Amino acid sequence: MHYGYFNGTIAPTEQLAVGITDLSLLRGYGLFDYFLTYNSRPFQWDWYWERFQNSASRMHLPLPLGKDETYAVVMNLIERSGGADVAFRFILTGGYSADSISIERPNLLILAESIHPTPLIQYEQGIKVILDEYVREMAEVKSTDYKRVILMAQAIKSAGASDLLYQKGGEISELSRSNFFIVKGDRLITPSRHILHGITRRTILQLAQSDFQVEERPVLLSELYDADEAFTTSSTKKVLPITQIGDLTIGNGHVGPKSKFLLEQFNELVKTW
Amino acid sequence: MHYGYFNGTIAPTEQLAVGITDLSLLRGYGLFDYFLTYNSRPFQWDWYWERFQNSASRMHLPLPLGKDETYAVVMNLIERSGGADVAFRFILTGGYSADSISIERPNLLILAESIHPTPLIQYEQGIKVILDEYVREMAEVKSTDYKRVILMAQAIKSAGASDLLYQKGGEISELSRSNFFIVKGDRLITPSRHILHGITRRTILQLAQSDFQVEERPVLLSELYDADEAFTTSSTKKVLPITQIGDLTIGNGHVGPKSKFLLEQFNELVKTW
Repeated sequence: MHYGYFNGTIAPTEQLAVGITDLSLLRGYGLFDYFLTYNSRPFQWDWYWERFQNSASRMHLPLPLGKDETYAVVMNLIERSGGADVAFRFILTGGYSADSISIERPNLLILAESIHPTPLIQYEQGIKVILDEYVREMAEVKSTDYKRVILMAQAIKSAGASDLLYQKGGEISELSRSNFFIVKGDRLITPSRHILHGITRRTILQLAQSDFQVEERPVLLSELYDADEAFTTSSTKKVLPITQIGDLTIGNGHVGPKSKFLLEQFNELVKTW
Repeated sequence: MHYGYFNGTIAPTEQLAVGITDLSLLRGYGLFDYFLTYNSRPFQWDWYWERFQNSASRMHLPLPLGKDETYAVVMNLIERSGGADVAFRFILTGGYSADSISIERPNLLILAESIHPTPLIQYEQGIKVILDEYVREMAEVKSTDYKRVILMAQAIKSAGASDLLYQKGGEISELSRSNFFIVKGDRLITPSRHILHGITRRTILQLAQSDFQVEERPVLLSELYDADEAFTTSSTKKVLPITQIGDLTIGNGHVGPKSKFLLEQFNELVKTW
């Protein structure tokens, strides 16, 4: 059983509920963040906190807790989870609103959840994604606006794919909930704009410094044709190879050595986190 | 005290709450509709139901109740509200989701609320709006995505304005929660695309048939300069004059006769609804 924190109270998560005048329910006004623990310690805590704070600031929501208080809540919830590593979901909403539109006081939820690991077969075979002409509004803010991928769920399934790869006017940005990379020789290339700045992305860019020539810049659809490898990064996906994008096979269609190498590097890092 | 319906149960609205795995909270996946009663009867019920059903279908959410069942709930809640006219808010969300992303079964809320009438002084003086370069995603679906106007609340207030008027590339669409009209001589002009098709808009277009030459078509910013009058329509605003748009004064800056005439027509209609 997992526990969660809601505006000062800690309770089993299945007992937590949000009143119906909350602006996330009425107006879609909310943001979140999501990270894992390794060895019962929050992974990249400083970076996640910085991003959460930045999202809150960009959406004009004052944070009800400071960094240290929040960390204490996180450690409390880790303890109650009984030893196994967990995922954390922070949710900050516009809060309860008397007139259904004005912000009064944000609601903060801090939830411990079970980790849903990515199936091993996806690491062995790579995944397929389909292209979608779309760019997230305020992509750099981790708002709760993920309507697009839910709306496209049937299209993804019909194509035998796992996710969307967003592009707009021929420029690639990101997958629906994770970042995008391509490998060409010893160059590691990832889009620099219209993206959520992923913490796993940042970790991988750091790990790759000594072995790759790293390029953070606008990436065009046309560059997929001669990519050797492609992969996506997120806290749960880690480094997940992409072997097909729509009708296009990436490289030789098999998981490549550079993707494997970066996944191993990442796994090494978290093992001793 | 008002009552609400949530998945089969009727209770006082302040007791209603939504569990934290709901996709509206986690992913902003929800839609709604909103209408008033007059003489204890839902205004334009057939049109509102049609729109709600259309929004649900566009967002791939099966409706848990049919039209007649829903009408019975509405009448039940009107009765419990004790005689005064009320506003109704229907909310349909992606529902509780085990994996935080897949739709299983939507959650339906039907809420009776107090009406917040528009202040009389706004009808006498007209309102000011400011231009905003923006267009709603899936504007024709009444999703709960109203992030933009909440994000811009401070900018609206600083300008001494009441709302945003969205335009993109010089083409006007709508206000943040209401439709837009201009009057030139006996022509009544309103944007035809990138809008939510308002039920009050539709009612006004019907009422105006015999006295105006009605034009539903793309409307450009440049057309504001020689407009005689402008107004906005919504269930709560009815026909609300707009006398200033950013730095531009509309017509002579006073509420015009055509706006007054249409408001009177509307008030006549609802009086005997």
